[in-house]
Amino acid sequence: MNMLKEKILSEGEVYPNDVLKIDAFLNHQIDTKLSDEIGKEFYELFKDKKPNKILTIESSGIAIAVATSKYFDFIPVLFAKKNDSSNMSKDTYSSSVHSYTKNQDYNIHVSKEYLNENDRVLIIDDFLANGEAMNSLIDICKKANAQIVGCGAVVCKTYQNGENRIKELGYDVKVLARIKSLNDDGSIEIE
Amino acid sequence: MNMLKEKILSEGEVYPNDVLKIDAFLNHQIDTKLSDEIGKEFYELFKDKKPNKILTIESSGIAIAVATSKYFDFIPVLFAKKNDSSNMSKDTYSSSVHSYTKNQDYNIHVSKEYLNENDRVLIIDDFLANGEAMNSLIDICKKANAQIVGCGAVVCKTYQNGENRIKELGYDVKVLARIKSLNDDGSIEIE
Repeated sequence: MNMLKEKILSEGEVYPNDVLKIDAFLNHQIDTKLSDEIGKEFYELFKDKKPNKILTIESSGIAIAVATSKYFDFIPVLFAKKNDSSNMSKDTYSSSVHSYTKNQDYNIHVSKEYLNENDRVLIIDDFLANGEAMNSLIDICKKANAQIVGCGAVVCKTYQNGENRIKELGYDVKVLARIKSLNDDGSIEIE
Repeated sequence: MNMLKEKILSEGEVYPNDVLKIDAFLNHQIDTKLSDEIGKEFYELFKDKKPNKILTIESSGIAIAVATSKYFDFIPVLFAKKNDSSNMSKDTYSSSVHSYTKNQDYNIHVSKEYLNENDRVLIIDDFLANGEAMNSLIDICKKANAQIVGCGAVVCKTYQNGENRIKELGYDVKVLARIKSLNDDGSIEIE
């Protein structure tokens, strides 16, 4: 994914508290050509796993999950919601996520109607840092007795424990860009 | 958009307070084949307007905006955020939206970096009911001096005033499915 790495190096911004802001092409404005390439890459990495559903989390996971779905012949995308919605079914699988960026916990929800033991789930998310969000998506799949066939993240901070944490749970984790360090001078080092 | 109408009639659910829940294929689980068809339809409706950017609102607008972008040769998608994010630029255009479903106001934000007077914006959203969200997206474009070339909504409740409200502002509004009534017996009437 040279296209992704070049984007991160040219348009990513280092913010205080170890935040990598990629609002220019993924988290606010979306470079949909890049998302499409990301989807193609996830397809190449996970095509042998034959997922029948993609699970992600709102909002930034949606664009890449939809792009990935296209390559898997349009398998459904399911996105976990961060807030209770007044018109969301009350019958949900929920899990708690700690956000280190915001220093607070929040719950994510998936309606029981859309996830069950017949599902072979590919989990896709934008960032893998401490693995909090990914771990909660796994937790929701376990509660639904759905099979997890793989976990894909666009950007991974390799100096945090998320990747190992998910691998140690026994899952096949693939990341597309590996951030080695975010530096005080604003520079970004990619492996 | 017969595919969309059939989906609404077969999988849409009528909830109290005039809520049409389409979590089965758009607002929670996403039928990405349908999203792709929606994108193609928006392209057909707006291709002569030559937008260079698509503006939507998180979360449910993202999938359809990304699908639409593909047909416009991957023009960027920009999604307004509903909450202040700790790593979002503080330099934003903001506008207030009243949610009739939740009976509360919330602000949406777009970073000034990604919207300006050179933009020809196609606004895309999932629902057009009272026109609150669409009106706020228009407000943000005005603040950025961006040109609005069209407004597309997937589902419109024609018995509410949103469509007329936006048309009266002078914009080209296109909707793909027109809901005539949501009934107490759970039935849905489409024009």
